[in-house]
Order: sequence, then C-alpha cells, then structure tokens
Amino acid sequence: MAARDVHSWMAAGRERVEAALDACLPAANIAPTRLHEAMRYAVLGGGKRVRALLCFAAGEFAGADPERLLAPACALELVHAYSLVHDDLPCMDDDVLRRGKPTVHVEFDEATAVLVGDALQSLAFCVLAGSGLPDAAAMVADLARAAGSRGMAGGQMLDLLAADRDIGLAELENLHIHKTGALIRVAVVLGARSGSVDAGALARLDRYGMRIGLLFQVVDDLLDALEDTATLGKTAGKDAAQNKATYVSRLGVETARAYAHELLAGALEPIAGLGDAAEPLRALARFVAERQF
Amino acid sequence: MAARDVHSWMAAGRERVEAALDACLPAANIAPTRLHEAMRYAVLGGGKRVRALLCFAAGEFAGADPERLLAPACALELVHAYSLVHDDLPCMDDDVLRRGKPTVHVEFDEATAVLVGDALQSLAFCVLAGSGLPDAAAMVADLARAAGSRGMAGGQMLDLLAADRDIGLAELENLHIHKTGALIRVAVVLGARSGSVDAGALARLDRYGMRIGLLFQVVDDLLDALEDTATLGKTAGKDAAQNKATYVSRLGVETARAYAHELLAGALEPIAGLGDAAEPLRALARFVAERQF
Repeated sequence: MAARDVHSWMAAGRERVEAALDACLPAANIAPTRLHEAMRYAVLGGGKRVRALLCFAAGEFAGADPERLLAPACALELVHAYSLVHDDLPCMDDDVLRRGKPTVHVEFDEATAVLVGDALQSLAFCVLAGSGLPDAAAMVADLARAAGSRGMAGGQMLDLLAADRDIGLAELENLHIHKTGALIRVAVVLGARSGSVDAGALARLDRYGMRIGLLFQVVDDLLDALEDTATLGKTAGKDAAQNKATYVSRLGVETARAYAHELLAGALEPIAGLGDAAEPLRALARFVAERQF
Repeated sequence: MAARDVHSWMAAGRERVEAALDACLPAANIAPTRLHEAMRYAVLGGGKRVRALLCFAAGEFAGADPERLLAPACALELVHAYSLVHDDLPCMDDDVLRRGKPTVHVEFDEATAVLVGDALQSLAFCVLAGSGLPDAAAMVADLARAAGSRGMAGGQMLDLLAADRDIGLAELENLHIHKTGALIRVAVVLGARSGSVDAGALARLDRYGMRIGLLFQVVDDLLDALEDTATLGKTAGKDAAQNKATYVSRLGVETARAYAHELLAGALEPIAGLGDAAEPLRALARFVAERQF
C-alpha cells in the first residue's frame, strides 16, 4: 500500500465512522438535551479513530462486509470516548484539555461528565447488541470484558495506584496491557469476527493487536515528553509534571524509541505471511509507530 | 399466594441472586484487588433486589427455566448497583450512607467509586451477553437502552437539572419514569423474554412494570419523608433538606399515599386476568407498595 493510498484509506475510514457515530448518537435537541449535547461534544469532531480503523483493517482482512463493521467500530469508539471523559475527571487524571478542546467536565460540569461517560458506555453496547450481526452477543461479551475490571477499567485502577510510586517496567507494561491494550486488542478481534478467519489467523491477529496496544502507549509517552500542547491537543509534559511512571521515565527517550521500533517489528511479524489483504493492518501499525515523532 | 409463601418466595429469590452475583463478581484477591474488593462491597450483602425479583416473577409467569433467569437478574442488579455508586458521588447527590454502610467513595475514594460504577456496568453486559441465552443480544439492547441517556442515566440528568427548581408534577413524573422506572420496567421485560409470552401478555406485563416503577418512587419519597436513617439504611429527610421536588413535597403525605394506592391498583389491573402464574407479580406489587410505611 503506497503512502498516498494509506492516507486516503484512513481518511475514508474516519469519515465513515464519524458519520456512523453521528447517526447513532441521539440528536442534541432530544431530551435531556444537555446530556445529549455533551455526549456529542465528547465523541464527535476529533480523535484519530485508531480503534475503528483497526477494526476496519482486521475486518477487511477477514473479508467482512464493510457495512457490518460500522456497529463494532462505533461501539469501540464510544467505549474509548467514555473512558477519556471519566479519566479526565478531577478525581482521576484531572485534565482540562482533550483533542484541542476543554474536557467535558470543564465545558459542562462534573456531574454531566460522569453521566456522559455512563451513557456512552450504555450506548456502545446498545449499538453493538442491536446491530443484528449474527455474532452480536459474543462481540458484546468480548467488548465488555475488554472494557471492564480485568481490562481497561482495571488498567485505569492500576494507573491510579501507581501514582507517585516507583514502579518497575514489568508493572508499567502490565498496567498498559490493561489500560490501553485491552481495547485496542479487542478492536482487531471484533473486526476479524465480523468476517471469517481461521483460528490460526485469528491468533496471529491477536498477537498483532497486543503489540499494537503496547506500541501505541510507548509512542504516547514519547509524544507527551517531546511534543507541545498545541500539537497534541492535550496537556503535554503532564506525565513528568505528575511524576508518573512512563516508558520515557523508565527507559529514557532513546531506549523508548528503540523499544517502539522493536514493538513495530513485533506487530508486523505475526501478520507477515498473511498476504496483501493484511496491508491495511501493516499500514496502521506504521501509522501508530510514526505519528508525529 | 399466602403472606408466608410470598415471604419465602422472596427470600429464596434473594438468596439465589445473591449467590449468582457473588459468583459473577471477580474474587477480591484477583488483581486489581482494590477495584474488585470495592465492586463486591458495592454489590453484595444488601439491597432488596426488587429488580431481580421482578425478573424472576415475570420469568416464572412466562414459564422460563429458573436457571435462565439468573443472568438477566444479575445484569439488572449490577446496573442498579453501578447507578447507586455514581449517584452517591460528591458531584452528584453527594451521599455518605447506602444500605446502612458508608458509600463507596467514602469507604474507598472517589476515583475508585467512578471505576467501580464503570466496571459494574461492563460486567452487567458481559454476564448477560455471555449467558448463552438465545435472545441474549436483544436482551442486551433492551437493558442498554433502559440504562442509557434516554432511560436511567437521562433520568439522573433530569434530576440534577431539577435541583432547586420548582418543577411541576408532570416534570417530576417524567423524571422518575426515566430515573427509576426504565430499569424496573425492563426487569419485567427481561424476565418475560426469558420464557415465552404472547404479545398481549407482554403488553400487560409492560403496563404493570411501568406502574410498579412509579409506585416504587412514590413510596421511596414517602419513606424519605417519614422514616429515620437507621430504618432506611440511607440518609433520611434528604429530599427536604436538599429542597428536592418529590411526590411528598408536591402532593403532601396523604395525597402521595393515596396516589401510591392508586398506582398499586393500576399495576394489578393489567395482570388481573393472567391467572395463578401471575401471583408472584401481584405479591411483589404489594410488597413495593407496603414496604415499611
């Protein structure tokens, strides 16, 4: 896939998921209007849509009907958006800037932000369960497991417990496998489930997903350390200011960068033999590795 | 159903759902232990389990296998428990006592309470979607809709927006139809869906559920006004102290009581012709109407 093709493939995918999200979110003039306005604010008009694109890429590989991929892609982005709204709360990471805009609790208020997150999570499962996909129940179970206490929410708990403690690399890795990795990994699984893949290919895709999840976080840590707030659209340098353990604080910039390259190679390796159909997955791996740094 | 039979039917139902909840919640020694401990604290060892019992009663009426009712009953109680944890947060209703114990954010902390609610919601959908019930996807969609922005979460938003405003009875009713009513109503629907009922009986059960939902709230308002904190296990007199619109503040105690009797009759009416199999539903209606006041 040529660089220009990758770019237009991603742009087209983002446009499709954005339109689908817009359609599945209640209109801002439906009561309670304040809640629906805030839900739309939290979800629409921003974000790289990496989880949706991973779902699309895995689905394309599995020969899924593109229409069938919209419900899981939306569900993934809704869960991701809910987690950002709650993670930004004053009692959590206490952040005021997200995707270049004030966070939900700043733009609206804290109570609304709690309810926005809660309602986005419900909506994610409503969209997926109501999709009519033959595999919908199993996909809901997969997504719920990835989002829950042994997945993403558990990872956020580990992150809070790690604050101001001097955690080692193994603990940091475990934290991110849950906090960021679980949802990215299930994005690949849901895409593959929407089409048809054999158990061998599914296992390869899952290894790919796991490594992409870690890669994503290592790059995030590098960006936080190296880029400015305007470029990121969220508060830069926050990890260091909060004395947070990151791949950069543990490894230094150069070693973290080398680790990112290693994870990229590790993500590409299991899908190396999967032919042209896996090209979007490869392009996404490179995109995750190379974004802005 | 004699009074003694009702009592033992309810006690047996509570015991069954309690055991099922205990089994589906991660053990407190599984990492992240603090989160799992707090989730168990929030869910187990308390509560009237009205939503689970309504699901059991509707399921019994519909001839459902009792084993099949456990997943929806647990999912309902998990969603209910999550909503209590979030509603009690300082930025929401700011309550320190629930089911006779300190609320989750008091016993643990605010960030943990946010994550407990989030993870309980995920777990609810995981349990229901993973139940293997043939209708699981449709049940997830029903429950997610009832929990979301046009159901329970939307009702909580309306409740917050109503604070300190002089809302009328129609607005109060609309608020409670969403905040309390949606989940109680879907409890009946999920129970009925687990067995087999014709469209006519389902419509009757749904009317029953809707009225039980309102009845529950009117009684709650009466209890808040008339009972003490020790009896309730949550802070009594809070509605008046917070200048909150309630059925009691709008109608006065006597008229609110009369309205409760009217709603009880209104709940019993649609299921009057449904024979002996509907007896647990009738008993539950009387229980909801008569608890403690």
